[in-house]
Amino acid sequence: MSAPALLEQLIEALRVLPGVGRKTAQRMAFHLLERQREGGVRLAQLLERAMAEIGQCRQCRNFSELEVCALCAASQRDDRQICVVESPADLAAMETATGYRGRYFVLHGRLSPIDGLGPKELGFDLLAKRLDDQAVEELIIATNPTVEGEATAHFLGQLARERGVRPSRLAHGVPLGGELEHVDRGTLAHAFGGRTELSS
Amino acid sequence: MSAPALLEQLIEALRVLPGVGRKTAQRMAFHLLERQREGGVRLAQLLERAMAEIGQCRQCRNFSELEVCALCAASQRDDRQICVVESPADLAAMETATGYRGRYFVLHGRLSPIDGLGPKELGFDLLAKRLDDQAVEELIIATNPTVEGEATAHFLGQLARERGVRPSRLAHGVPLGGELEHVDRGTLAHAFGGRTELSS
Repeated sequence: MSAPALLEQLIEALRVLPGVGRKTAQRMAFHLLERQREGGVRLAQLLERAMAEIGQCRQCRNFSELEVCALCAASQRDDRQICVVESPADLAAMETATGYRGRYFVLHGRLSPIDGLGPKELGFDLLAKRLDDQAVEELIIATNPTVEGEATAHFLGQLARERGVRPSRLAHGVPLGGELEHVDRGTLAHAFGGRTELSS
Repeated sequence: MSAPALLEQLIEALRVLPGVGRKTAQRMAFHLLERQREGGVRLAQLLERAMAEIGQCRQCRNFSELEVCALCAASQRDDRQICVVESPADLAAMETATGYRGRYFVLHGRLSPIDGLGPKELGFDLLAKRLDDQAVEELIIATNPTVEGEATAHFLGQLARERGVRPSRLAHGVPLGGELEHVDRGTLAHAFGGRTELSS
């Protein structure tokens, strides 16, 4: 037979999306063709533009089509705090959940020599320059509480201290709404060791 | 603020996909930007082409970018059988599950006056013409076992009989692997009434 039908090619292409297998891809293709042609065209155009135009902000390395992203450009945010996260998704989660009004820095990964991710790939030089040049007082290290995330946090802590900047780390402990019985041992030990006084 | 960032627009556009909410759309966008730019570009191009070029096969009304789809053009399939399905997805399911080697006809819906779907919208005239012009012997009616699907099947049965074509319907009964205890009453009654002799 000749080249596979266009529909078949579209179904295969949709599988590039995370968590989308053959069956879901088929359902998506049929849905768009049957009911959402305009939405499909709009998605195609935005995908094409986004893949071509979205790069990293020169200052915080977050995704942006601008040289300096909206968060870095916003004058009402506090320059004295920088929160370091592993990914743009983590940044989005911080923005949604917390009332944080400082700046950000996105690593796009964590220290992981096995994956070829060293200080250079994570933009440590760019972060160091920001700490040197700007009046930063606190570096909030919000890497994930994994082995590699902790190693990265340790490294970042040193980087901050060397420049007279106070490093801080997200609190670890029992998650809200969690039951002690189901919390893993490491977290429970950490929460116990870091217990705080009950305010009256 | 000015227009929302390109990333924000992409996330909104991804929600046109079925079952994709805000959070999944965000995950998809980040995944493509972080790891699958090429796949994203390819998806954009195929989406654009598919939305513009895929129409309905002139003969069976299945999705195709060709005037006559591959299934209708295939010379090795049996012209004496036509299987009528409600949607291209149903056609795909039949092709995957059964060894059927005849032709198809896609209604793109079921008789539903309330949704403005009558015989004209479902292409009954086109189907009637095929029954008139071609040496069709059996019309396999594979509409869904819903009230509207049954009404459609009834209508199609008449259409076939008037043209000397034998109509047939998918068997109803207890699904394979199902437990009687959990089968709904209608299906169970139907399966009981339609019980078949145990072959020795």
